[in-house]
Amino acid sequence: MTGSLATDLPGVELITDADVLASLSHDDAEWAPAGRPVGAVRARTTEEVSAIVAACAARRIPVVARGAGTGLSGGANAVDGGLVLDLSRMNKILEIDPDNMIAVVQPGVVNDDLKAAVAEHGLWYPPDPASAPWSTIGGNVATNAGGLCCLKYGVTRDYVLGLRAVVGGPAGAYGTPVRLGHRTTKGVAGYDLVSLFVGSEGTLGIVTEITLRLRPARKAAPRTVVGAFDSVVAAGNAVAASTRLGLLPTALELLDRACLQAVEEWKHLGLSSTAEALLLAQIDTPGEAGQDEANALARVFQDAGAQWAEQSTDEFEAEALFAARRLAYPAMERLGPVLTEDVCVPRSAVPAMLASIEESAARHGVAIATIAHAGDGNLHPLIRTPTGDEAAREAAQAAFEEILTAAINLGGTVTGEHGVGLLKRGGLRQELEPAVLSMMQAVKQTLDPLDLFNPGKVVGI
Amino acid sequence: MTGSLATDLPGVELITDADVLASLSHDDAEWAPAGRPVGAVRARTTEEVSAIVAACAARRIPVVARGAGTGLSGGANAVDGGLVLDLSRMNKILEIDPDNMIAVVQPGVVNDDLKAAVAEHGLWYPPDPASAPWSTIGGNVATNAGGLCCLKYGVTRDYVLGLRAVVGGPAGAYGTPVRLGHRTTKGVAGYDLVSLFVGSEGTLGIVTEITLRLRPARKAAPRTVVGAFDSVVAAGNAVAASTRLGLLPTALELLDRACLQAVEEWKHLGLSSTAEALLLAQIDTPGEAGQDEANALARVFQDAGAQWAEQSTDEFEAEALFAARRLAYPAMERLGPVLTEDVCVPRSAVPAMLASIEESAARHGVAIATIAHAGDGNLHPLIRTPTGDEAAREAAQAAFEEILTAAINLGGTVTGEHGVGLLKRGGLRQELEPAVLSMMQAVKQTLDPLDLFNPGKVVGI
Repeated sequence: MTGSLATDLPGVELITDADVLASLSHDDAEWAPAGRPVGAVRARTTEEVSAIVAACAARRIPVVARGAGTGLSGGANAVDGGLVLDLSRMNKILEIDPDNMIAVVQPGVVNDDLKAAVAEHGLWYPPDPASAPWSTIGGNVATNAGGLCCLKYGVTRDYVLGLRAVVGGPAGAYGTPVRLGHRTTKGVAGYDLVSLFVGSEGTLGIVTEITLRLRPARKAAPRTVVGAFDSVVAAGNAVAASTRLGLLPTALELLDRACLQAVEEWKHLGLSSTAEALLLAQIDTPGEAGQDEANALARVFQDAGAQWAEQSTDEFEAEALFAARRLAYPAMERLGPVLTEDVCVPRSAVPAMLASIEESAARHGVAIATIAHAGDGNLHPLIRTPTGDEAAREAAQAAFEEILTAAINLGGTVTGEHGVGLLKRGGLRQELEPAVLSMMQAVKQTLDPLDLFNPGKVVGI
Repeated sequence: MTGSLATDLPGVELITDADVLASLSHDDAEWAPAGRPVGAVRARTTEEVSAIVAACAARRIPVVARGAGTGLSGGANAVDGGLVLDLSRMNKILEIDPDNMIAVVQPGVVNDDLKAAVAEHGLWYPPDPASAPWSTIGGNVATNAGGLCCLKYGVTRDYVLGLRAVVGGPAGAYGTPVRLGHRTTKGVAGYDLVSLFVGSEGTLGIVTEITLRLRPARKAAPRTVVGAFDSVVAAGNAVAASTRLGLLPTALELLDRACLQAVEEWKHLGLSSTAEALLLAQIDTPGEAGQDEANALARVFQDAGAQWAEQSTDEFEAEALFAARRLAYPAMERLGPVLTEDVCVPRSAVPAMLASIEESAARHGVAIATIAHAGDGNLHPLIRTPTGDEAAREAAQAAFEEILTAAINLGGTVTGEHGVGLLKRGGLRQELEPAVLSMMQAVKQTLDPLDLFNPGKVVGI
């Protein structure tokens, strides 16, 4: 079958080397199962993607797109008998249009590379998942990635104006390239297929070009406010209080002691703390108004019982703290397998959710370290499991399911920014009304009647 | 048939009075044709909407939802043999949750009433279509309404977290109520059906409850910068230059002389100007940074050749100017029938689009007054037509089509915020690739297989 697929695609190298295939067959979600693909290709143009999708459709070979493989839900994991479509070589920034504050990019462009390129034009692309040094815009679009600054500046979907995508079904033969959305900041010409594709994890078609809205670069260095707390729940109370007062920092991040220690042991950034939890806030309102916000936030931290709370006057210290936040996930991964949660709850429920996580950890005897975009109510408890210990693995899985249920019961969702992929398929079914799941499945079936694009993921059966 | 429909709905008054029906059968788009409905009902609860939709489905009677009827594209116009479902009595604010900056409302709540209610909690609902004193949140959701401050704060879709909707098709029997989206600020659990429903003009189901994100109220009064120009194109150049410099005022509005005069003759606000076009900008960045922005914007206006440009220091004058902007549309309507455009182009193309509008006016011998959310590239040329003059009507229609084509050719869209309804159906087909139109039609067909919800609108056949 792969032999004949190769014949169909004369100019494209079909990778069948087992080691390379294995490395291209999974993302960064250690617990998610990966299938055995028949091959992989590295596309470079929309036309190649078109030809690949058409050839796969003719042979009913499923297509799973991938970028850098930094996903945390298994959304890019290969499926048995499918083709892996690696888009990481489609890494050209096609256009930066400062007059309209727009960029047009291929899906394989790395988030930080785009940031650097637009900065040269005095522009800023805000979405900043912790994976920004490695993750691609295509992957960010596939999962509707969030990050630190979405508290104030929104998530990936808020920046996608238009998409080029290779689709099938009602659009015509599989392999048809279409343009969705527009280049204008407003537009209501028909249904919002762009928003439908963003976050759909490659299940509706293959995105080959992305038109992004940009913002003017920020002029002043942001202010940092740090608070240290005796418990993660106390830190959660400070988060809820800050929302209640209408404070809108750029970022409001929580790191517990286990995460801080893991980073320090790895990177020696000079972080030392006796606190059980730190809150890191960034404020980018310029001038006196920004100073007022910083003061108000420090007061909120103190009123919520912080050991201490202060505005960092040392730029290096502030940078080290945010670096620690970004490195927390890989630092924990170094210590062994991690099962990553991505629950998101209404902000007032953050303390209750944090308490519930601690209870689950105690009940199941598992170690859970927590990092969180706390200001958004988006928490990432990281459940650790020693390799080879089956009982520990089962306990971790039980805690994982319990945390999903708790989030739903608090009015939240099982995934704030990582996507459903494979790991949250059960949680999704628990969260959504059956009628809504049916609507989503019907949309998938309509736009991809062959179930060719990333089958089994998100709402797949 | 209506007799039997009344039997199906014992507690609901079926309106069949011809005059009342006529008044409920059209929105504010004077040129759009309206059908003759079999009746109208005023629903008060989701359960009533459910029963109404189920009864109509059983009898294959199409359902057209409406709110205040301030739409400008005919999207809420009745269809022959259909039922008008008036949601304006579903006007309860169900919940204001200051801890999470969320409001839950019924669709008939008037935009300004919501603003006033949340202001009491120190909160702000930004979307501000010029119709805000009359238009309903349900209608705003149906068209993804924009407004003045979306330049900085986004459009309706950016504020809708969740929806309750009565649907049919894959969700189960027609009349099934579902909950889409969530209460959290982030969430990627499945496809974004909320964004799909926003802007779908009631063609996918009936929205009966809306969960909205709010922002903290702004503390300081905004600054106003006004510039007067010799021509609308010169004003357009100032708009393009301001975007190029990365200035992001809250609003950047254009009013031409005809609009200003029409408002003055009606309301006597004391506006007097020899300018051909005014630009009105509002800046809400607090403190010195706001002052810097205001100065920079005034300089941009001057550099683009303004007769004069100044920061308004008189709060009443500033308020009068923005009131004039909001009243421009009804003021023009007082003078006779108006055919309203809603084109949106990339911001750098605003001068070219304005020049093109002037050419169309001259070529077809029609009077076109222009108001614009110029900073967004969203222009509302208002084509005037004397009543009863068939030749003038044809000329107006020709100019209308030409302006749509020009917008598409400049990389823009035929509708920025009013929706497709009936008036932009042709333009939509010109703008979209046939494959994309097919995708949208397939989504409609899947979610509403009976074509019960507002048939013929948007992508309807």
